[in-house]
Amino acid sequence: MSNLLIQGATVLTMEEHDAVFKDGEIAVAGDKIISAGPRGSVPGEFKADRVLDGSGMVVMPGFVNCHTHAAMTLLRSYADDMPLMQWLNEKIWPLEAKMRPEDFHWGTMLCCLEMIKSGTTTFADMYFEMDLVALAVEMSGLRACLSRGMIGVAANAKTAVDESIKLVEEWQGKAGGRITTMFGPHAPYTCPPEYLKKVVKLAADHNVGIHIHVAETKDEIDQIKGNYGLTPVQYLDENGVFDVPVLAAHCVHLNKDDIAILKQKNVRVAHCPESNMKLASGISPVIELLDAGVVVGLGTDSAASNNNLDMMEETRSAALLQKVATGDPMALPSFAALRMATTDGARALGLEDVGLIKPGMKADLILVDFRRPHLYPRHDLYAHVVYAAQSSDIDTVIINGKIVMEGRRVLTMDEKEVMTQAQKCADRLVGEE
Amino acid sequence: MSNLLIQGATVLTMEEHDAVFKDGEIAVAGDKIISAGPRGSVPGEFKADRVLDGSGMVVMPGFVNCHTHAAMTLLRSYADDMPLMQWLNEKIWPLEAKMRPEDFHWGTMLCCLEMIKSGTTTFADMYFEMDLVALAVEMSGLRACLSRGMIGVAANAKTAVDESIKLVEEWQGKAGGRITTMFGPHAPYTCPPEYLKKVVKLAADHNVGIHIHVAETKDEIDQIKGNYGLTPVQYLDENGVFDVPVLAAHCVHLNKDDIAILKQKNVRVAHCPESNMKLASGISPVIELLDAGVVVGLGTDSAASNNNLDMMEETRSAALLQKVATGDPMALPSFAALRMATTDGARALGLEDVGLIKPGMKADLILVDFRRPHLYPRHDLYAHVVYAAQSSDIDTVIINGKIVMEGRRVLTMDEKEVMTQAQKCADRLVGEE
Repeated sequence: MSNLLIQGATVLTMEEHDAVFKDGEIAVAGDKIISAGPRGSVPGEFKADRVLDGSGMVVMPGFVNCHTHAAMTLLRSYADDMPLMQWLNEKIWPLEAKMRPEDFHWGTMLCCLEMIKSGTTTFADMYFEMDLVALAVEMSGLRACLSRGMIGVAANAKTAVDESIKLVEEWQGKAGGRITTMFGPHAPYTCPPEYLKKVVKLAADHNVGIHIHVAETKDEIDQIKGNYGLTPVQYLDENGVFDVPVLAAHCVHLNKDDIAILKQKNVRVAHCPESNMKLASGISPVIELLDAGVVVGLGTDSAASNNNLDMMEETRSAALLQKVATGDPMALPSFAALRMATTDGARALGLEDVGLIKPGMKADLILVDFRRPHLYPRHDLYAHVVYAAQSSDIDTVIINGKIVMEGRRVLTMDEKEVMTQAQKCADRLVGEE
Repeated sequence: MSNLLIQGATVLTMEEHDAVFKDGEIAVAGDKIISAGPRGSVPGEFKADRVLDGSGMVVMPGFVNCHTHAAMTLLRSYADDMPLMQWLNEKIWPLEAKMRPEDFHWGTMLCCLEMIKSGTTTFADMYFEMDLVALAVEMSGLRACLSRGMIGVAANAKTAVDESIKLVEEWQGKAGGRITTMFGPHAPYTCPPEYLKKVVKLAADHNVGIHIHVAETKDEIDQIKGNYGLTPVQYLDENGVFDVPVLAAHCVHLNKDDIAILKQKNVRVAHCPESNMKLASGISPVIELLDAGVVVGLGTDSAASNNNLDMMEETRSAALLQKVATGDPMALPSFAALRMATTDGARALGLEDVGLIKPGMKADLILVDFRRPHLYPRHDLYAHVVYAAQSSDIDTVIINGKIVMEGRRVLTMDEKEVMTQAQKCADRLVGEE
């Protein structure tokens, strides 16, 4: 356990709009924030092992990326500007089928490296070979909520269940508490009712949630309507999925009844604006969800459909997209967008002690260096972070009380090695075509 | 005149999709590119005064920002998340009215600094006190197309004409050919027919073009329809505006006839997706414009409504927005988006020797450092630049054959001084409220 003091930065606690300390001070003991306030507010008995000078910086909670597929970072820019099903059938799935353990390892390591460098401190992942993913998370220092993707209609549906149970039983609460788990039934159109019911029971028995893609495309709506006469949300509700905590990715195509169900069952949404834009899936009715009181977090989706894992950029895209989609320039203002990317994202993952700067919360913090031309002059700091800043302005990243990046140098990984090995894996994968 | 050789970078010439040199070589003599090709392709008689090592980098034409208001960078984050007319009436216009010469100077200097750091090599500006803007452009090393904004219904309408003539007569072709000029009648709804006709005659007499806002909001459509029974495009056409070369900013609300007129009259469009999103103005029918053969460039609009001047981000937003707006993931693929941000932007400004890497073109080049986690692995370079890269990956910027940024250090300006002075001006402006 070591004690850390951050001094002189402007603190955006994210508790409420005006909860800002201009010349602030944050004390961290072990993995927790023990005090946050103006300079001089730290308890007299606190002895810091390390003092970080935050002059010229803004400190805020780290970003929570609520939906990604980490190892797919290997497929970044492998196939773009294509229709979704052709993209999956001809490009993504054939390459995924060739992925070996080292690909999962280095793909996830590359993802973790990029996420740390862009200020993400927690992410929710759904993929395969989750032991390898968990190991990469442990090494990187990130906080993560992991789920093994399960396709109920696939030949390996049973294996997926077994591996999911193993993931939950072996990794829940591990890596100093940084790893949590969920079950990951892929989507309404890949999971039949009996399969879903089995997974819901497993989640309930293990006291964990479910991470699932919901209502991502118009095709999905048509398919579920055709098969069951229901919307995807109704279909999941009818099969008891929402009786456990659910993280529902995308939620692009919803009607009013769907939104009412999501609210009533306390389903949390992972909104992925850039992936939805790039794949032309549509625009999620985020403002309606928020007005209904649904918790909405933000996710990048994978680097294969984004093509980066930059939550600062994603926050900006979310805000801009809602304004133009609703015709209301006041929609999703900067503070609300930033809450979505931090505090509400943590709530979406069921992490009640993450995503705010206040005593008792986990010390997941980022220091943004504001001494950049594009961050002058300074009228409104929230607007700066959401509309003007770049993730490369992030100087320091602290996760669970530990400094994982300082002066933009990642301390938990060998950056060059990760990039080299990831390229090697990608070259081999493509070379095998 | 000095000779520059860039060696070892991957060259995206932007002439066509496959015109890429992997281990490339570009020779620059004075302000021009004299050869571009694979290593060893430089003419034997070429003697370089300076050799730039481009290993690990991608070199491409610099970005052309087709529409901004440079000095408004001082108002960045001063007012956000507001309806357009309230934003203008209560916030922007009152503050603009208080701007002094030093504000125009430092606001423009800050804008130039940010643009260089984000890889813009040419920009089109419309504002006031254009002598000061031209001086800042000259000092910064940027290339610019300047116009004095003219509001025909304002008390100073006559002064604006006189200052516009002065700008064109004194600055056209100056700063080593880097400065060109246009007349800048503000918009259809601020310029009555007789005023427009006078400006068109002036532009024709001076052999320069016109830079104007067109069809930015639904309100504008309604107003012009109410006053003249025409669309803004028809109104400008009827008053002869399109008989000179026109750079039409925004063009959000167009019907099929408007698009046909724009094509027939060779009007060039400055598409500003992020400003249109942020102000909830709407989505320009860019794909229809391109299908009709209209030249479309890209602009950020001012930092007061964007809130940065980052053309790499703007290019990504343009591509993502067209996909989701049309429901077609193949809309505006990466190469086309990048052409819009470079080559076509230069054409939109009437600069026929800017925006491509080939012999005879002006040496306006940027070197993008690809040794970053978010640019691994490397399957498709265009997709990387458009969908994954950040402007902070840009290492070196060359304008008119001169290195203006190297290793991210801007050589033509004192970065700290610019930031400090801009903040001082902004503090005074707001303090006077």
